[in-house]
Amino acid sequence: MDTEIIEKLIAKNEKKIIFLIMDGLGGLPKEPGGKTELETAMTPNLDRLAAQGSTGLLDPVGIGITPGSGPAHFALFGYDPVKYNVGRGLLSAAGLNFELTPGDLYMRANFATLDKFGHIADRRAGRLETDKNKLLCIKLKANVRLQNAKEVFFVTEKEHRALVVLRGGNFSEQVSETDPQKTGVEPIEAQALAPEADDTAAAIRELSGQVKNVLRQEQQANALLLRGYSGYHEFPSFSGRFGLKPLAIASYPMYKGVARLLKMTLAEETNTIEEEIQQLASGYGKYNFFYVHIKATDSRGEDGNFEEKIKVIERVDSLLPEILSLNPDVLVVTGDHSTPAVMASHSFHPVPVLLWAKNCRADSTSNFGETACLSGSLGRMPMKKLMAIALAHAGKLQKFGA
Amino acid sequence: MDTEIIEKLIAKNEKKIIFLIMDGLGGLPKEPGGKTELETAMTPNLDRLAAQGSTGLLDPVGIGITPGSGPAHFALFGYDPVKYNVGRGLLSAAGLNFELTPGDLYMRANFATLDKFGHIADRRAGRLETDKNKLLCIKLKANVRLQNAKEVFFVTEKEHRALVVLRGGNFSEQVSETDPQKTGVEPIEAQALAPEADDTAAAIRELSGQVKNVLRQEQQANALLLRGYSGYHEFPSFSGRFGLKPLAIASYPMYKGVARLLKMTLAEETNTIEEEIQQLASGYGKYNFFYVHIKATDSRGEDGNFEEKIKVIERVDSLLPEILSLNPDVLVVTGDHSTPAVMASHSFHPVPVLLWAKNCRADSTSNFGETACLSGSLGRMPMKKLMAIALAHAGKLQKFGA
Repeated sequence: MDTEIIEKLIAKNEKKIIFLIMDGLGGLPKEPGGKTELETAMTPNLDRLAAQGSTGLLDPVGIGITPGSGPAHFALFGYDPVKYNVGRGLLSAAGLNFELTPGDLYMRANFATLDKFGHIADRRAGRLETDKNKLLCIKLKANVRLQNAKEVFFVTEKEHRALVVLRGGNFSEQVSETDPQKTGVEPIEAQALAPEADDTAAAIRELSGQVKNVLRQEQQANALLLRGYSGYHEFPSFSGRFGLKPLAIASYPMYKGVARLLKMTLAEETNTIEEEIQQLASGYGKYNFFYVHIKATDSRGEDGNFEEKIKVIERVDSLLPEILSLNPDVLVVTGDHSTPAVMASHSFHPVPVLLWAKNCRADSTSNFGETACLSGSLGRMPMKKLMAIALAHAGKLQKFGA
Repeated sequence: MDTEIIEKLIAKNEKKIIFLIMDGLGGLPKEPGGKTELETAMTPNLDRLAAQGSTGLLDPVGIGITPGSGPAHFALFGYDPVKYNVGRGLLSAAGLNFELTPGDLYMRANFATLDKFGHIADRRAGRLETDKNKLLCIKLKANVRLQNAKEVFFVTEKEHRALVVLRGGNFSEQVSETDPQKTGVEPIEAQALAPEADDTAAAIRELSGQVKNVLRQEQQANALLLRGYSGYHEFPSFSGRFGLKPLAIASYPMYKGVARLLKMTLAEETNTIEEEIQQLASGYGKYNFFYVHIKATDSRGEDGNFEEKIKVIERVDSLLPEILSLNPDVLVVTGDHSTPAVMASHSFHPVPVLLWAKNCRADSTSNFGETACLSGSLGRMPMKKLMAIALAHAGKLQKFGA
C-alpha cells in the first residue's frame, strides 16, 4: 500500500544513493548488559556519520520473525518480503545466471552420501570438490530422462551444492522436499502437497531414482537431496519502480541472484571488500543507486566468532572514507538482518540502520550501535520502508496531494 | 497477517515461557513530572531483570484506545483484539464454566433496585449477598418461560452479578442493552438494532417483564439490568496456534473465562498471589506456557488507591525470586492495560513490558517503569505481537524464507 504511493510520487534526479549492506550486522552482547559486536568494534568513521546523521532500527519481515537472506534483501529494496517470498531454488538459479524461463521448476540440490542401508551418512558428501561436482553434473545431464519433463538441468554451484531445473512440463511448487535436513535417515520420497502437484511429485521421484542409479558407483556422492522448490516468478524491476539506475556489487551468487531478479545491473566479479569499493568508485559516474554487499559479517556471525565479526566491521569502517570521498547524496549503512555471534545464526532482532544525508533529522546518537539506534530519529520501522526514506532524502519523491 | 505467518513458523520445543500479568499495571504520576505507581514502588527484583532484559511499551488495542479486560487479554495471547472482540456475556459464561452451546445468547445481568416510579435507585441492589442472588436465580429459572427461547438460564456470579442465557431460538447480538449505566431513570426497553434482531428484542422485553413480575415482592432486588450480549463464538485454540502446553493460573472468573475460551488448562482454585505462585511451581514440569494473573493491581487502581497499588506491585516483586528459581527460559512481566490510580479506571496509556531471556537485546534500561520503558529495546508495539516476541526468544519460531 505505502509502496504503491511511493511509486506514484517518483521524481527522477541525478542524486546518488549508496546502500552499504553488512550482512547479518545486528548482534547481541556476550553477557547481559554487555556490548554487541557493532558496539564493541572501533568504528570512528561510522560513529561520526551517526553523530551527523539519523539512526534507527529495522524489522526485516516482522516483529519476532527471523528472516532468510532472500526475504530480508527484498525488504531492503522496498519489496514486501511476504508478498515476494520465493523458494531458494529461484534465487540460486538467478545467482548462477541460469536463463530463467516461464514454466521452469528450480530446486536447490546437495550431493550427499548414502550408506549401504540407503541412510544419509553425510548431507554434504564430505563437502565435495567443485570440480568433481561439475563432472557429476555433466554425467547426470547426459543420462537422466524424465517422462514428465522435456529437459532436466544439473548446474554446479560450489562444493556439494548444485541447482536442478525441470523444464517443459506442468510443474507445481507444492511438493515435499526430499532433503530431511538430518543424517541417519533415508531421503524423503517426494509427495504432492496439493492435488495439482501429482505430476511434479512423480517427476521428482523418478528424478531421485535415476540420479541414484547414475551415481551408484560413486563412493562419496551417490545421491542428490532436493529442497527450496520454486517456479518462475517475474518481479517488477527496481529501476521501473523507483526511477533509479542501480548497480549491484556483491561477491556471493545468492545476492547477485536477488539483484538479477530485480533487474539491477551487476558489477564485475569481486572477491574482497576492497575490490567491491573499487567497483563502486569506477561505476559511480554511470549509476545513481549502489548496492554494496559485505558478506563476511554474516559469515563470522554464523561461525559464532564474535571477535572476527568485529574485525570485519572495523575493516568496513576503515574503508568508509573512500566511500565518502565520492560525495554520495544519501548513504545508508545497515544489514539485511541480525546474525548475533552468540547465536551463530540469523535472528529476529531488529537491525541497526544509519542514514547520512544533507537533510536528515538530528538525533542524540553519537555512535553506531544497537542501543544508540534505539533513540535514533528514524525510529523503528519495517525494513521495506527504508527505500522510501532513502528516496525522500535524495529529493526523489514529490509531494503527496496539494 | 503477521500472526498467520507466525503460526506457519512454529517449532515446538520444551522451553518454558511465563507471562506474569499484573492487571492494570500501567499508571500515571499524581503530579505532572512525578512518578507512576510502578516507578514509585520499590522493586529491586524487577529492576534487576529490566537491567538484564529488554523493556518496551505495548498498545493493547490501538493508540488512544482504552481496552476492556477481554480484548486486552486476547491481545496478550496473540489474538487480534478487534477481530476476536466478543460481548462480555460470553466471557462471563466461560468464566462460570457454563456449558457453551452454539446458538446461545449470553448476557451479563445486575440485580438492581427500582423505586416506586420504576426508576433505578441502585444499579447493584445494595451489592446483594451472593446467597440471596442464588435463591433469586433458582426462583427465576423456575418461573420464567419465553415464547422465543426453549430455555432460559439464570446463573449466579457474585454479589449482584449474574449471567442470563437464552437457548433454543434464533438470536442476534444486535439488541440494545437494558442497563442505562446510571440511576434515576427507567431501565431501557430492548430494541432491535438490526432487522434480524426483532425476535431477540421481543424475547428480551418479555424476559425483563417476567423477571420484574417474579421479583415484585422483593425490596432490594426487584429487576435485572442486562448488557454485554454475545452469541456463541469458537476460538482457535492457543495450543493449536502456538504449539504450546498452556497452564492458566487466575483467581477471577473473567480471566479463567478467557483462558477457557482459548482452551488453556486451568490450574486449581487460588485465592492469593502466593497460592498462584505455588500453582505455577507445582505445574511447572507438565506445561511450557504459564499465564499468571494478578488481579489486585487493577482493583487498587480502580479504587483510586495509589499507595495500595504500589504495595501490590512490591508484593509481586518480592515473590519474583520464587518464579526465577524455576529457571524459566522466557519471563514476560507486563499488564493487560493501564489502570492509573489517579484516573480510577482503565486508560489508553501503553503498558510497560519487561522480557527476560537468554538472547534478549541489550538496552540502557536499569529499572522497570513507564519512562524507562520508553528507551527499551522492544520499542513500542501492538500488544498482539508480544506472543511472537516471546516465542522467538524461546527458539520456537523457524526462519522465514531461504
